[in-house]
Amino acid sequence: MGRWKPDARGRLTLGALELFAERGYEQTTAAEIAERAGVTERTFFRHFPDKREVLFMGAKHLQDRVVAAITAAPASMPPIDVVGVAMESAAELLEEDRDYARQRWAVIAATPSLRERELLKMASLSAACAEALRARGVAELPAGLAAETGVTIFKLSFERWVSDEPSGTFTECIRDALAQLKGMTAGA
Amino acid sequence: MGRWKPDARGRLTLGALELFAERGYEQTTAAEIAERAGVTERTFFRHFPDKREVLFMGAKHLQDRVVAAITAAPASMPPIDVVGVAMESAAELLEEDRDYARQRWAVIAATPSLRERELLKMASLSAACAEALRARGVAELPAGLAAETGVTIFKLSFERWVSDEPSGTFTECIRDALAQLKGMTAGA
Repeated sequence: MGRWKPDARGRLTLGALELFAERGYEQTTAAEIAERAGVTERTFFRHFPDKREVLFMGAKHLQDRVVAAITAAPASMPPIDVVGVAMESAAELLEEDRDYARQRWAVIAATPSLRERELLKMASLSAACAEALRARGVAELPAGLAAETGVTIFKLSFERWVSDEPSGTFTECIRDALAQLKGMTAGA
Repeated sequence: MGRWKPDARGRLTLGALELFAERGYEQTTAAEIAERAGVTERTFFRHFPDKREVLFMGAKHLQDRVVAAITAAPASMPPIDVVGVAMESAAELLEEDRDYARQRWAVIAATPSLRERELLKMASLSAACAEALRARGVAELPAGLAAETGVTIFKLSFERWVSDEPSGTFTECIRDALAQLKGMTAGA
């Protein structure tokens, strides 16, 4: 998502992030977001069912992208590397706008109900990954292990990438986390 | 937890599981649970703050046990094996009553709000494991990776163990899952 979006949807997203940061998520209404974006409340509801979805409507697109990457990976690739590549493709999407990702994350981290919502989205992502792996012929348990591991790597790498002192791009954080996990399990 | 508990708390727990299975979790009240257990509603609330906690009050004990096992593990043990041993100690606790674990899980699986609650408890368990690993001197990222991996193994092994055709005890499922994960990451 580009930082400057002249369209109503982009202005609503930016306005919502500003207001959530200034006043807190719970204290912000859809009407106030519309006002900040210079559109009517009706326009807000044409784009989003509620204020929460301003933060979460991208999750479906992200999940679809991850599943597509799993499906498209070479048949010979081991499941753990398939999820690694899939998470990199998700990272590329978010890397387009680190400021947005950071601001969104700050709001979520500060709001318990949103942290729960984010957990649910991650559980949904894991379930979708496991299903896509099983469709490649991976057995039940390894599919679950690889899917959960992929989401773990995605989450921990995201948190490193949006931290004040990231150790690289999101993609680099993902590669590093997977390499570290392999090192931890291989040595043991 | 023993299957037969003559005390009020045990009867309330069993009564709640029966009613949740018969009528659904949302449709069951604390008063009905008390009635089924042959105690007053006031007795119910002396033991549990609400009907949800009948299912989740054990989570704190489980988490404490896991953290204690991480803390007590030999200093030379690699983090991934420390969490493996810690999850085995949690499994031993639940193995005392597979029927209870199965019934509790069936109620949770059937109720979206409880699945969310379970996700939160697992996130809390992961955070507590990561903290206990850091206290052993494990760095931030490996602590997070090992903690999340431990919870993944716990969750997937639990689901295998409470399935209709478990492939062994909960502890055996955990050992097998960790071995499979090591195989997946070592070969890749």
